Amino acid sequence: MITSRALEYAQSHRPSFLAQLKDLVRFPSVSSQPKHAQDIKRCAAWLANHLRKIGLDSVRIVPTPRHPVVYGEWKRAPGRPTVLIYGHYDVLPADPLREWHSPPFEPTVRGEDLYGRGACDDKGQFFTHVKALEAYLQTERALPVNVKCVFEGEEEIDSPNLVPFVAGNNRALRANVAFMSDSQMLAPDRPAITHAQRGALRLEVEVRGPKQDLHSGSFGGAIHNPLQALCEMIASLHDKVGRVAIPGFYDRVRPWAAAESASMRRTGPSDAQILHDARAEKGWGERGYSLYERTTLRPALTVNGILGGYQGLGVKAVIPARALAKISFRLAPDQDPKDIDRLFRRHIARIMPGSVQSAVRTLSSAKPALMNRNHPSMRAAVLACWKGFDAVPAFLRTGGSIPAVSIFQEYLGIPTVHIGLALPDDRIHSPNEKFHLPTFYKGITTSIWFLAAIGALRRLRASPREEVEAKAAEWSLAYDH
Amino acid sequence: MITSRALEYAQSHRPSFLAQLKDLVRFPSVSSQPKHAQDIKRCAAWLANHLRKIGLDSVRIVPTPRHPVVYGEWKRAPGRPTVLIYGHYDVLPADPLREWHSPPFEPTVRGEDLYGRGACDDKGQFFTHVKALEAYLQTERALPVNVKCVFEGEEEIDSPNLVPFVAGNNRALRANVAFMSDSQMLAPDRPAITHAQRGALRLEVEVRGPKQDLHSGSFGGAIHNPLQALCEMIASLHDKVGRVAIPGFYDRVRPWAAAESASMRRTGPSDAQILHDARAEKGWGERGYSLYERTTLRPALTVNGILGGYQGLGVKAVIPARALAKISFRLAPDQDPKDIDRLFRRHIARIMPGSVQSAVRTLSSAKPALMNRNHPSMRAAVLACWKGFDAVPAFLRTGGSIPAVSIFQEYLGIPTVHIGLALPDDRIHSPNEKFHLPTFYKGITTSIWFLAAIGALRRLRASPREEVEAKAAEWSLAYDH
Repeated sequence: MITSRALEYAQSHRPSFLAQLKDLVRFPSVSSQPKHAQDIKRCAAWLANHLRKIGLDSVRIVPTPRHPVVYGEWKRAPGRPTVLIYGHYDVLPADPLREWHSPPFEPTVRGEDLYGRGACDDKGQFFTHVKALEAYLQTERALPVNVKCVFEGEEEIDSPNLVPFVAGNNRALRANVAFMSDSQMLAPDRPAITHAQRGALRLEVEVRGPKQDLHSGSFGGAIHNPLQALCEMIASLHDKVGRVAIPGFYDRVRPWAAAESASMRRTGPSDAQILHDARAEKGWGERGYSLYERTTLRPALTVNGILGGYQGLGVKAVIPARALAKISFRLAPDQDPKDIDRLFRRHIARIMPGSVQSAVRTLSSAKPALMNRNHPSMRAAVLACWKGFDAVPAFLRTGGSIPAVSIFQEYLGIPTVHIGLALPDDRIHSPNEKFHLPTFYKGITTSIWFLAAIGALRRLRASPREEVEAKAAEWSLAYDH
Repeated sequence: MITSRALEYAQSHRPSFLAQLKDLVRFPSVSSQPKHAQDIKRCAAWLANHLRKIGLDSVRIVPTPRHPVVYGEWKRAPGRPTVLIYGHYDVLPADPLREWHSPPFEPTVRGEDLYGRGACDDKGQFFTHVKALEAYLQTERALPVNVKCVFEGEEEIDSPNLVPFVAGNNRALRANVAFMSDSQMLAPDRPAITHAQRGALRLEVEVRGPKQDLHSGSFGGAIHNPLQALCEMIASLHDKVGRVAIPGFYDRVRPWAAAESASMRRTGPSDAQILHDARAEKGWGERGYSLYERTTLRPALTVNGILGGYQGLGVKAVIPARALAKISFRLAPDQDPKDIDRLFRRHIARIMPGSVQSAVRTLSSAKPALMNRNHPSMRAAVLACWKGFDAVPAFLRTGGSIPAVSIFQEYLGIPTVHIGLALPDDRIHSPNEKFHLPTFYKGITTSIWFLAAIGALRRLRASPREEVEAKAAEWSLAYDH
């Protein structure tokens, strides 16, 4: 069996794998802060060098207008499927620093966990796949599949250059399936495959009134306040029961069979679990859906921030000249961000009073992604999780939107197998982020098995019959997990 | 005539008056910025020293928890009325600095104007009264009235310590009338008496949701967004035609006779003028009232600022844990800030959904102030303007709220004669603030005449018949200007 030596290698090399992961976490590769641009570069160089060392071919650092993509490949298995492995080596800022128990960029093992910014999101997770490749290449001098690795440095800033990179290299990146780990599992013994994510549409709405800030004593009551008009616009976006009130918004939202709800109740987090994770006391939103459904099957609209007027201490009597809201939609299958963008602009144009001017800017968008749970690669993933974790994985939906998944679907026409390795208490995006080391090692085993299983598949496209079954399954859950 | 030598003195000392005003403007006495605390102190010391030099008694610098009051008096005219002269020696910050044509704290004469931060608001304006006192004291060794001077250092930060100062010294500050210059006139040849100002009530409303910011991808649609709840609350504060929608808000707003509107149309600025001053294209607000009425006779509610969520460039997918709005009311006669505060809190409690928590904090308040235009001191002011400007002054209302006027009314029981000397193009609160020097000199003449006229009055309380006439006048304008 091709996996056995690779598995042994992975088992015996845990200390060096951990040391290398610590090296990787040590780079403060914060993509959003220009002061870390050199750290990003150094991290990319380290990673490229590492990919070369483990035996990948054609390793290169591909510049983009901002942070580079690290690419490597191994295409010496003609006739075999090609797997596109994705990850991101950039991280979020570590603030607030004083809340960390050990410095965020001095990776530290305490108990079974490695603490550090990026230890889990996504350095630790994507490194499992790098280590799986190494285990094969250092033992067999071969992989069971062809592989193309794309590690980007911009995921935490919404992957602004991933579309041009993928679209511009869509022949070179041709593959049968994408493979990544950048999401959650349910517990150390409960692996999960994220098979659906919401789409996203991010906009800014600016409302302008007088040419400069006015004294609200002198002019209050006679000049329309752009900040007030903005709030009234935002209030118009939801009805009283928490549904989005933009005409036409729900027209294309896919209805789901009762069986899907039942399945989600069995598999996914309960309302109590979600409120616990959110540290919130009460839920909110569309009636008739669980909180898990509201954050995955159903779309949502969130005001992420407002800029307008005086923000200092105390008071300043001002009618601001302008006000701005940052708004993000999460879209459900089968909503199209382009449609929603148009509906939103039409709504704004209809409700904005003539006493102010408004402008809408679209910042980014991603289509919802929904993987066929009956696709052969999903079966390979189920097998791999079973081998790695000794448990059948749950199929999960996520409310978030990883741009790569939508981009691979749209520009390469391939599904993504997404095996999340983050535990619910790994505190990604928060102080004291950590990665569970037993999960790190099991993730490597899982990755070794996934590559083997894909390599053993006779075909990687679903058959017409499977496609029909898949469609049926989506609606009625003939396939259950 | 007691005024003649004082008038001659004022005429012949213009160069030294201007030099002294420049010395006063040179202090960057910015009350809102802790880095200027020493400048405030130096300015207060200079002013106290100056009051001593011109001949005032008992001059002292009275500390407060923040910036001191400069006090001086002259009480050697037993049996004569007492005038409380008010002004403020603090100024707003000069930002944005790059828009100034000469440095804000290097006072510079160009043409007929003195440029500098505070040249008009309020150093130049209150200095006219100091120079009027000097003109009398240096020529007659006496004033035609008793005088108490209160120059505060906190007007631009809403006079937080003026109530304790006035309430704590209300016997020592006893006077018949207050006198100040800290508002507008209509044109260099159109003097004005500001006889009414709106009240004010400043509040903060904070809305809290989850214990920390949440990822809006993961939780959007399931957890109520405090920023959205805040916007919906703000939207509930106005109806569709621009009226405040808080139940009971207009119950005590005084209705006015048609004659008052007619008079305001004759005297006050036109809609076109107000839009020009605001650099706005369209008016807004309550139907049936001119813009001048909307900003003076009618109350208003303005959202001055909102803090909430992500405010940087681009996007950050966050449901903020909290959001805060700064809200200010301008109140019309006979609204009481305490009533409005209670109505507002009741409204918020009624409309806030249970899925968020809210808190209201009251920051400051001032009652509306309305002076009897038939009061004898107003007649003295009309005479003084006539003498100083060779024109009958207009009676103006202002939409703003100078705390001192309400405080003197409430804690000392005295009216304020408010002769504004700021021209519409003096750019108070903006870069290139200036003071019109011919107006400075005419203001000194006006002040000399005002003190003389008050000193010559047999009595300073309105007679019962005058009070009745005044009430009638307010409603029907039997007294016209």
